[in-house]
Amino acid sequence: MQYTAIKLVKRPTLSITPDLFEVVTLQSPELAEGEVLLKQTHMSLDPAMKGWMMEDRNSYIPPVELGEIMRSSGIAEVVESRNPKYTVGDRLHGLIGWTEYAVSTGAGLHKLPPGVPAEAVLCVLALPGLTAYQGLMNIGKPKSGETLVVSGAAGSVGSMVGQIAKAEGLHVVGTAGTDAKCSWLKDELGFDHAINYKSDDLADQIKDATPDGVDLYFENTGGPVQHITFDRMNPHGRIIVCGMIADYNTATPSAGPNWINMIKRRLTVTGFAMPDHWGDVPAMSQALLGYFGAGKLKYRAHTLQGLQSAIEGINRLFTGDKSGKLMIAL
Amino acid sequence: MQYTAIKLVKRPTLSITPDLFEVVTLQSPELAEGEVLLKQTHMSLDPAMKGWMMEDRNSYIPPVELGEIMRSSGIAEVVESRNPKYTVGDRLHGLIGWTEYAVSTGAGLHKLPPGVPAEAVLCVLALPGLTAYQGLMNIGKPKSGETLVVSGAAGSVGSMVGQIAKAEGLHVVGTAGTDAKCSWLKDELGFDHAINYKSDDLADQIKDATPDGVDLYFENTGGPVQHITFDRMNPHGRIIVCGMIADYNTATPSAGPNWINMIKRRLTVTGFAMPDHWGDVPAMSQALLGYFGAGKLKYRAHTLQGLQSAIEGINRLFTGDKSGKLMIAL
Repeated sequence: MQYTAIKLVKRPTLSITPDLFEVVTLQSPELAEGEVLLKQTHMSLDPAMKGWMMEDRNSYIPPVELGEIMRSSGIAEVVESRNPKYTVGDRLHGLIGWTEYAVSTGAGLHKLPPGVPAEAVLCVLALPGLTAYQGLMNIGKPKSGETLVVSGAAGSVGSMVGQIAKAEGLHVVGTAGTDAKCSWLKDELGFDHAINYKSDDLADQIKDATPDGVDLYFENTGGPVQHITFDRMNPHGRIIVCGMIADYNTATPSAGPNWINMIKRRLTVTGFAMPDHWGDVPAMSQALLGYFGAGKLKYRAHTLQGLQSAIEGINRLFTGDKSGKLMIAL
Repeated sequence: MQYTAIKLVKRPTLSITPDLFEVVTLQSPELAEGEVLLKQTHMSLDPAMKGWMMEDRNSYIPPVELGEIMRSSGIAEVVESRNPKYTVGDRLHGLIGWTEYAVSTGAGLHKLPPGVPAEAVLCVLALPGLTAYQGLMNIGKPKSGETLVVSGAAGSVGSMVGQIAKAEGLHVVGTAGTDAKCSWLKDELGFDHAINYKSDDLADQIKDATPDGVDLYFENTGGPVQHITFDRMNPHGRIIVCGMIADYNTATPSAGPNWINMIKRRLTVTGFAMPDHWGDVPAMSQALLGYFGAGKLKYRAHTLQGLQSAIEGINRLFTGDKSGKLMIAL
């Protein structure tokens, strides 16, 4: 059987352009004993992909090699099995890549509970929810009544961070790039405040929304929100650095805040990436299913159609031209 | 009995000038039941004092109020006692202030072991040693074989950090501001490398001295060492922020590093100040006495004579015009 896949053949300099990719037609091999044939149904597009394409051997996972199928997480159905642990129709989740089909032993893939829609898996139980939970709960260790600011709050991770924080009794302030996103955060997700970071009076708005200062800052974007919020941190504040999307498409990284307040306020700033924490996934999935089952985690998927829509579509992550978690239905 | 003390009467803007202080003559009161009269013999001058003089209610301890005796730690002898816990001749250590004599109940003061010279107490067992131990060991959690960079390495805290790290089996690189200080670090304290941060090829020197990257950075200064070292941090590196002396006398704080590497290398940056950790002092003192007894903590005191030498002398902390831990003998 023939199927389509997309390889990375060139590394990006600033933006992600179609010439970085090559669309190839592959032939599925005979399955060996222990293997399954997977048909991908939904594929996630995430900001971290930009990093995976770069030649940076110091990052948290090795880059995608040139000539390899581009890396991504997704959901696939078992369509043929020579592995007794899997039967046809099982749904698996994990790093499958930009491809319609894949052959796997199942290693590194997780079986999905039945009944949860694919969109909910990719929005809540997959990378966005896991990343939000790991950063906020395991690193940030929030206490009820504390104040959280989350940047990129309408993004796939940020929207989960804010909702988990509300479920845990925090005062939650989010920043986002349009008034429509801010309305969604306040009116549908229950954020206490949502602020358009393009406002002229951004600093005043953040100040007004955090009368008791800021105990936790969950960083997804960088930019002016970072500096303003850093200055409002309370003693023993925790900053969780998850993304710096404002800087992913710039040649010169912007300056960070001076470190004097690190001492004066005794702050802790922690950068993290989910691949260090795969071992904790089962426990985190349980917790996320709990919130989800109680109706506390709402999501919005922005679904593109067909594998090749990823090539242009991935840029929506950086332009913000999307209304929800970006994914591809195959 | 009359004695001299020095009050803070004005807050500094940039530098510390004599007009910030008022020298006063005080009359010692009658001791109440439970009180002791202390005669200070040695008084420590520390960079943190600059912060204590500023009007910053967000810092880790409240500022010295205008009209109050300036805050400092020191060693005093009990010369009169109406407290059964203390006898004449006992030596106590703690926050005594810029004064020749003080009346105290003993609260917040620690009795000193006999036989340890006053200089060793202020250099090793007092703020510098405690701060070094807390930051390096309790926050940094070093492992034998790891690489440490410490800025301000010839300073009172930095020299203790490097020596404790050597005792714990680390590869230790220090930066300092003169070649003479660098020789002292290498030849007498046993640092693996000592680098003059004013060198034209500072980045190359730091790179050559840290062939396996940097696992721990102990920050005392800010400035170019910060940016160069930040870029050399290994995955899961820990940065301990203790001082930013390069910025204490500047109007505009310098920019910090961009946060993208926080994520890529999964770094943790922790600011701390000793007043949060007084409860741990007994255990830390024991550990420091252990290193000291084994001859692993050498020190150099730069001693000025007489209380009033503090007024001009404190600036040596910021100009670097000193050859060891700055203190006053009274």
